[in-house]
Amino acid sequence: MKQVVVGLDIGGTNTAIGIVDKAGNVLYEKKPQLPTPQKKENPDARLDVSEKLVGDFIKLITSEIRVAIENVRKDIPDIEVMGIGIGAPFANYYDGTIGITANLPFVTVVPLTGLIQAKLPEFSIIKVTNDANAAALGEMIYGGAIGMNNFVMITLGTGLGSGIIVNGDLVYGHDGLAGELGHVTVVPDGRPCGCGSLGHLETYCSATGIRRTVFELLAKYNNNESPLANIAFNDLTSKMVFEAAVQNDPIALEVFEYTGEILGRSLADTVHYLSPEAIFLFGGPVAAGELLFAPTKKSMDHYLLPFYKNKIKLLPSKLKTGTAAIVGASALVWKELDKRR
Amino acid sequence: MKQVVVGLDIGGTNTAIGIVDKAGNVLYEKKPQLPTPQKKENPDARLDVSEKLVGDFIKLITSEIRVAIENVRKDIPDIEVMGIGIGAPFANYYDGTIGITANLPFVTVVPLTGLIQAKLPEFSIIKVTNDANAAALGEMIYGGAIGMNNFVMITLGTGLGSGIIVNGDLVYGHDGLAGELGHVTVVPDGRPCGCGSLGHLETYCSATGIRRTVFELLAKYNNNESPLANIAFNDLTSKMVFEAAVQNDPIALEVFEYTGEILGRSLADTVHYLSPEAIFLFGGPVAAGELLFAPTKKSMDHYLLPFYKNKIKLLPSKLKTGTAAIVGASALVWKELDKRR
Repeated sequence: MKQVVVGLDIGGTNTAIGIVDKAGNVLYEKKPQLPTPQKKENPDARLDVSEKLVGDFIKLITSEIRVAIENVRKDIPDIEVMGIGIGAPFANYYDGTIGITANLPFVTVVPLTGLIQAKLPEFSIIKVTNDANAAALGEMIYGGAIGMNNFVMITLGTGLGSGIIVNGDLVYGHDGLAGELGHVTVVPDGRPCGCGSLGHLETYCSATGIRRTVFELLAKYNNNESPLANIAFNDLTSKMVFEAAVQNDPIALEVFEYTGEILGRSLADTVHYLSPEAIFLFGGPVAAGELLFAPTKKSMDHYLLPFYKNKIKLLPSKLKTGTAAIVGASALVWKELDKRR
Repeated sequence: MKQVVVGLDIGGTNTAIGIVDKAGNVLYEKKPQLPTPQKKENPDARLDVSEKLVGDFIKLITSEIRVAIENVRKDIPDIEVMGIGIGAPFANYYDGTIGITANLPFVTVVPLTGLIQAKLPEFSIIKVTNDANAAALGEMIYGGAIGMNNFVMITLGTGLGSGIIVNGDLVYGHDGLAGELGHVTVVPDGRPCGCGSLGHLETYCSATGIRRTVFELLAKYNNNESPLANIAFNDLTSKMVFEAAVQNDPIALEVFEYTGEILGRSLADTVHYLSPEAIFLFGGPVAAGELLFAPTKKSMDHYLLPFYKNKIKLLPSKLKTGTAAIVGASALVWKELDKRR
């Protein structure tokens, strides 16, 4: 029997489903991805609409999980499906729910794993956590953190997420929602954050934060020669900033210096909290390589207590961008099997 | 047989030794406390002087441990001594060493538990950690955190220390030195910290930080009517600030507001990292009660993500100030026995 697990990632726009083996190979991936229910489908936040959206969504994903398993079984008849791992926004590992979040149109807490369990009673392991926690487990089980018992995963995307591993296990904390490093204050009274507070790490160092820095610097220097001055706010990607920096555009270069300065200072705080062996960065901006890593590492070492200087590894994630979400989610199941052993 | 443990606390000035039972009762305490070797005894940081100081100190404490045990045995002949728990600055739980620190005259890393073990080979458990970690264990085993699996202990003294409990165990991290919350940055480019960096939490919210705020505000307002204006920097204690605040002194009241604002913001960060059930405060400034707790709680809730608002308990430590160091250190041994069970 070849053991495999289902990896499910509920993103803001799309939901990905795949089948993953113990080595992290994706044996099947649903293409195109499924649509995640959108806020615009429930603009008045009506409870009855929300309930229907939840019901339809659960039907869709459970039926697609069956399709996925059957697809793999065609090629490998003797697979044993060990469980379903799910990454989802604002997910609570302890009770299997996803909370009310700006990213989804559901107006009540959704008992996600319970609803899936009811449709797929044959699975004894159905676990959910947020995508950054899933990525941390993915890094530990398939990626660059194999053998590490204390490390931190930072995901740089629309927001900034994190997964904290202490003593070989994810830190969920008392309420199941630990690891919200995107919402630590790095600049008191700084940039407004989506959560309502000011100066949070994700307002500076997420992919979106980097975009904000670009436009802040264009405005500051009134710079019309930068290639970035020809790109609209909504069109700008981390990749474009990277490409401009490679061309020695001073705005783009300063963006990475500034991002690295703030991220590195915050990661020094992270080290003072947790004394990790390594910190992994994941997401679009990581493709900038040393342009991002060099100033971040320099800043981190600058702010670290002497004992820690030059000791903490700052590494790019080894998870593949395309399948990381599925692979990370699937890792939840292997971790659970490991705990029960 | 009545099981007891030895609690040893190596402070900057004095070293305390006591015998503690399973309920946290101190059955014996060495009075007066032993002198901790001082920097002035080794002003030129000479290796040979350092080695002699270490050797003499180990002889002194091991002989006093024997005296302490014999003293208790006189009253309770059938005690079983389960081990020695030690709180010490810059101590590494994993390897039993204390690092080179500004508080001690030793110029090399001291293999503390090994040296004690050599003199007292009959003990199978000799463990060391820093005083804030020891206090966290003390709170969990004897104090207000009984039954809690996720909480944070903050000690407000000359510096600001912390002990983090996740999943019922202390977070030591990869290098054994996690939980240095005194050295997270709360005001970028803020007050100089003893460690060489700027704007660290302990420069604002330790007992020393509170004193700095008093003098900053006296200077700012050029206030000569405050009772605090008649006290020299070196003479000012948290208690005096508390007493002035009770008398409605505007400087003292603003000091607590300011301290609470910064501490609360930093504790919100702590919650976003760790999702603790509670945060305990310990140390001299805690005696100010609501004068400190009210602005801290208000600020923490202000900065917390909506999900956490009004959910996190902010509590005074239940450890008694006088014996907390011994009692906290002793908790290390009970925790170790618990792990081995």
